[in-house]
Amino acid sequence: MIESIKNRKSIRKYLQKDISSELLNNLLKTSFRASTMGGMQLYSVVVTRDMAMKAKLSPAHFDQPMIKDAPVVLTYCADFRRFTLWCKQRKAVPGYNNFMSFLNATMDTLLVAQNFCTLAEDAGLGICYLGTTTYNPQQIIDILQLPKLVMPITTVTVGYPAEAPEQTDRLPISAMIHEERYHDYVPTAIDRIYAYKESMESNKQFVLENKKETLAQVFTDIRYTQKDNEYMSDNLMNVLKQQGFV
Amino acid sequence: MIESIKNRKSIRKYLQKDISSELLNNLLKTSFRASTMGGMQLYSVVVTRDMAMKAKLSPAHFDQPMIKDAPVVLTYCADFRRFTLWCKQRKAVPGYNNFMSFLNATMDTLLVAQNFCTLAEDAGLGICYLGTTTYNPQQIIDILQLPKLVMPITTVTVGYPAEAPEQTDRLPISAMIHEERYHDYVPTAIDRIYAYKESMESNKQFVLENKKETLAQVFTDIRYTQKDNEYMSDNLMNVLKQQGFV
Repeated sequence: MIESIKNRKSIRKYLQKDISSELLNNLLKTSFRASTMGGMQLYSVVVTRDMAMKAKLSPAHFDQPMIKDAPVVLTYCADFRRFTLWCKQRKAVPGYNNFMSFLNATMDTLLVAQNFCTLAEDAGLGICYLGTTTYNPQQIIDILQLPKLVMPITTVTVGYPAEAPEQTDRLPISAMIHEERYHDYVPTAIDRIYAYKESMESNKQFVLENKKETLAQVFTDIRYTQKDNEYMSDNLMNVLKQQGFV
Repeated sequence: MIESIKNRKSIRKYLQKDISSELLNNLLKTSFRASTMGGMQLYSVVVTRDMAMKAKLSPAHFDQPMIKDAPVVLTYCADFRRFTLWCKQRKAVPGYNNFMSFLNATMDTLLVAQNFCTLAEDAGLGICYLGTTTYNPQQIIDILQLPKLVMPITTVTVGYPAEAPEQTDRLPISAMIHEERYHDYVPTAIDRIYAYKESMESNKQFVLENKKETLAQVFTDIRYTQKDNEYMSDNLMNVLKQQGFV
């Protein structure tokens, strides 16, 4: 398994080959063994296989082709509704319509999503996470008919790989590991940490194509801009309110 | 690997045996292969081995004994500081002091945390997540000296197991899996989903001991109360503001 995780790559092109329900449900079932807060299992997974449903979801994910190409699209949702309904049916007064509960359910959800991805890859499938889920949550809520106290967190496309991409780079591990306390980064450390990434031909090309001066500017000015982030932050908070979590 | 995940249990008692730095760093390094938004790797891990540091962290985790007993305590932090410093050093204007960026970094962080746990368990170690991290984030921030744009998300204790607990129960998988769209729960479905959990002797005992009428009341009245959740939600939002994420 170490090898499977060590060699993993996100897969964005899939064979036109279905994943059997038996395999999918086995992987999901095993993934649900992940740690969960108080044993509450605060998540739901919506499984999309239907082409018409994929077509509806596609714009919410900026029409990234994986949605329509993958045989299976999984929308992972933080879910305090099921638990809340149980409480109400058992003479208990639930108190999970708040931000803390949202974060708790989000954690449960992501542990299970990552467990699924590890298992799927070990079984020879390829996966890709779509971060767009929290950019357009309202569209996804409407399409998948998510009720209050259910919030889409991330989407995973799954299928048999039809590509074998290069592994993407990672920062040196010393960048992320702090012994005993956080050791803040001096300028020379930042230079060292990002040196390899900046030296990559593909990234140099990326800077040129985008007519920027530095790789960081491609991120701040094009890929993840302050303006977009602020717009999406407001939107996200509004949707969290509407779903009853704030 | 499927077997390792299938049979996993959280471990709360550890042998007094160190984890070598080589093993720990190998596991961490491999865990960093997890998917990450835009390749940004928006996380840091603070490694606590020092007994004095564990003693300081312990109250923030309500003195759960795992903190002092485990040879290694990992505090997983959402981290947009490293990336932001890089941007500033490269004539780029970062825009990551917002809620969307917090959520993006939180997702990156949890995928890596779960990857680590899977790898650690496969290597014969035992782990336990501590949800208390987001209950008392300020204490943890102070102890670990976390700067702005760094927020503790979860804590994992790791060590060689000194116990072999029973596996905890999980809901039937049909409870969490929704085909094509969210299928809301009718009262009979809720009864069916929670029937096994409610039938367990240990849970019946739990209800009696707590002088409650139903298992759900143990959750709502004692373990995860509305009052606590609301207090912690306000606190969490204040700490997020202070750390520059709201």
